[in-house]
Amino acid sequence: MWAQKEFEISAKKRGFHLITDEIVRAIPELRLVDCGLLHLFIKHTSASLTINENADPTVRQDLESHFNKFVPEKASYYRHDYEGDDDMPAHIKNCLLGCSVSMPITNGALNLGIWQGIYLCEHRNQGGHRSIVATIQGLSRMRTDE
Amino acid sequence: MWAQKEFEISAKKRGFHLITDEIVRAIPELRLVDCGLLHLFIKHTSASLTINENADPTVRQDLESHFNKFVPEKASYYRHDYEGDDDMPAHIKNCLLGCSVSMPITNGALNLGIWQGIYLCEHRNQGGHRSIVATIQGLSRMRTDE
Amino acid sequence: MWAQKEFEISAKKRGFHLITDEIVRAIPELRLVDCGLLHLFIKHTSASLTINENADPTVRQDLESHFNKFVPEKASYYRHDYEGDDDMPAHIKNCLLGCSVSMPITNGALNLGIWQGIYLCEHRNQGGHRSIVATIQGLSRMRTDE
Repeated sequence: MWAQKEFEISAKKRGFHLITDEIVRAIPELRLVDCGLLHLFIKHTSASLTINENADPTVRQDLESHFNKFVPEKASYYRHDYEGDDDMPAHIKNCLLGCSVSMPITNGALNLGIWQGIYLCEHRNQGGHRSIVATIQGLSRMRTDE
Repeated sequence: MWAQKEFEISAKKRGFHLITDEIVRAIPELRLVDCGLLHLFIKHTSASLTINENADPTVRQDLESHFNKFVPEKASYYRHDYEGDDDMPAHIKNCLLGCSVSMPITNGALNLGIWQGIYLCEHRNQGGHRSIVATIQGLSRMRTDE
Repeated sequence: MWAQKEFEISAKKRGFHLITDEIVRAIPELRLVDCGLLHLFIKHTSASLTINENADPTVRQDLESHFNKFVPEKASYYRHDYEGDDDMPAHIKNCLLGCSVSMPITNGALNLGIWQGIYLCEHRNQGGHRSIVATIQGLSRMRTDE
């Protein structure tokens, strides 16, 4: 079976945000898949998707701190600054973290590690809502291919 | 349907290059897919694939500047330098940026954000042409599975 | 055809390790696939999967040195340090390198470049064994879809 849908994630403040529940709610089709893959794709160049710890919120804070230090604003070599000091760093962070994640689906649920969650990384100060395309594929639990 | 093909991207100078059009021309099979995924894989350890802004060329220049600064040449801790000062930095950049990208196909076209394009990142001073494997899978628009 | 299996990679010391052979041995189903994709997913937030050079071991040593320098221990801005100095750096490295890799399967084998191999990157001092989910999909060589 294949299922694909595009939906919006509500605007988040700059930083790393756990969105596993928001994602799972958006794609109830997950429950129909016995064995497959979920592919998530964010249609933006200044916000990213990644997977990391789903428990302690200080992990997300430390990730934001680290990326701000190692992808600084106002670097002397930036030429692209039309939209402000957070513009070019957002593009670099997006390349480092990536615009897609994919993960196994097993027995009707995401097969993540016990400590893993899906993150939306908002790199802009005012990012607005973000569009995500979810693509689900796999063997149907009912064996009735769509 | 499944389609897989291997093709070469012409030699590019060191830096970040927008190759969306080159990719789309190489895989006309895209038009046959109603709902699916494109997977691109570069068969090299010193050139990368990523997705970022498709408009202002200064984004690509700033990315090259940033990665050159944060993955420096001649770092004192490099032991692998057989092929010159650009050798080990190229491997590190490849790990940071990745050797594959995947993205949704919807209604016969890549379903990218309006500002997104596919980049080939050439990390060597003299990289030569680069081999890419494109794998397309999805539901056929004609519903005639290959 | 689809095949999915979960298996453990034996404990490795901190650093970058070539595991291509271990992976291929774990999934003999590869040989059945004419044209497809292999997706590998590590169910942890402090060990990563990536692809890089399969020959000279100094590449792996230099990668470890580089990531240790640019994702330092004891950074003043870390708040998450419950499990020691290697705790938060491990999460950051995991975000930078990623928890999944995917690659083409062609004619019953991984279609990697001649110099490419699969790495397990162990970011913890005492990481223990690591769980990986392998998902194989593609056209069967026998054309008998599972």
